[in-house]
Amino acid sequence: MSPNVLGVAGSLRHDSWNRRLLGALAELAGDDLRLTVYDGLEQIPLFNEDAEEPTPPGVRQLREAVRGADGLLIATPEYNQSMPGVLKNAIDWLSRTEPVLEAKPVAVIGATVGNWGTRLAQAAVRQALTATGAFVMPQPMLFVARANERFDPSGRLHDAEVSSGLRKVAQAFRQWMVTHR
Amino acid sequence: MSPNVLGVAGSLRHDSWNRRLLGALAELAGDDLRLTVYDGLEQIPLFNEDAEEPTPPGVRQLREAVRGADGLLIATPEYNQSMPGVLKNAIDWLSRTEPVLEAKPVAVIGATVGNWGTRLAQAAVRQALTATGAFVMPQPMLFVARANERFDPSGRLHDAEVSSGLRKVAQAFRQWMVTHR
Repeated sequence: MSPNVLGVAGSLRHDSWNRRLLGALAELAGDDLRLTVYDGLEQIPLFNEDAEEPTPPGVRQLREAVRGADGLLIATPEYNQSMPGVLKNAIDWLSRTEPVLEAKPVAVIGATVGNWGTRLAQAAVRQALTATGAFVMPQPMLFVARANERFDPSGRLHDAEVSSGLRKVAQAFRQWMVTHR
Repeated sequence: MSPNVLGVAGSLRHDSWNRRLLGALAELAGDDLRLTVYDGLEQIPLFNEDAEEPTPPGVRQLREAVRGADGLLIATPEYNQSMPGVLKNAIDWLSRTEPVLEAKPVAVIGATVGNWGTRLAQAAVRQALTATGAFVMPQPMLFVARANERFDPSGRLHDAEVSSGLRKVAQAFRQWMVTHR
């Protein structure tokens, strides 16, 4: 059976390139994995140690989604040469109380309209996830630059290189999840 | 006249070590600077490009506070080997629409109960701030480890080494603000 993967886009924008990238991967992955894109990141409050109990509903929902998934796939944009605060805030919550990221297989990809393909953002995501005890897949990496040239106006991917990269990520991530089951 | 500095603690916790560190600096700085600790970070929503207009009130308030200050002093904890998402989220908002961080003198310090003094968090803060065009003071750095041993139960600093470090930061930051006025 195909492993069940939770996809999280690091941007809250409705037409985010990273949400589109996850959508493209869901189609291209075939039997390698079943991807469900998470839709409730905007329900997560700012992390505050004074407000951890009772667990905010949006945090409980994300925790349960991560716990129930065989793996987590993060697609991140780059803001100010790092990951978005929104994404780090979610990781901060997930690292507390109940360690749902510990030993969880995670893959990281990212897209941007800029030239550098979210390299610094992905490095930041990998570092923070590694600190949580997640099993972060080291290879293949996928850095999508000039995302606006790779999707058509309706948001569908039409780029052979990125399509091939997504397929390789899906295949390798399937194997990574099997190895770390 | 003493420059007017806005202090921002990267944790929302009421009794945060970094808030206490800013309080200690405010007392120790003497005439080097007047520090006002910002109290509205929890009013800033998660960044969302779809929700930038109209500017959320909490963001407008922080922007005005930064614009009105001669310098910004950030005291950060370390979460998952980086800065808190809460702090990055604020930086993400401040880097948009109106570039209030551009050419703004900024100093970074940090405290933690752990052994490593927020070294990775501060490196992440410096990198993101540099990306915004802020003028980040390179030296002196102040990494406060085992913060719980350095404050008394009422939250007052009683540590000569940290007190001396805070005075040096205040003196150097005054000069940095004069240089970059």
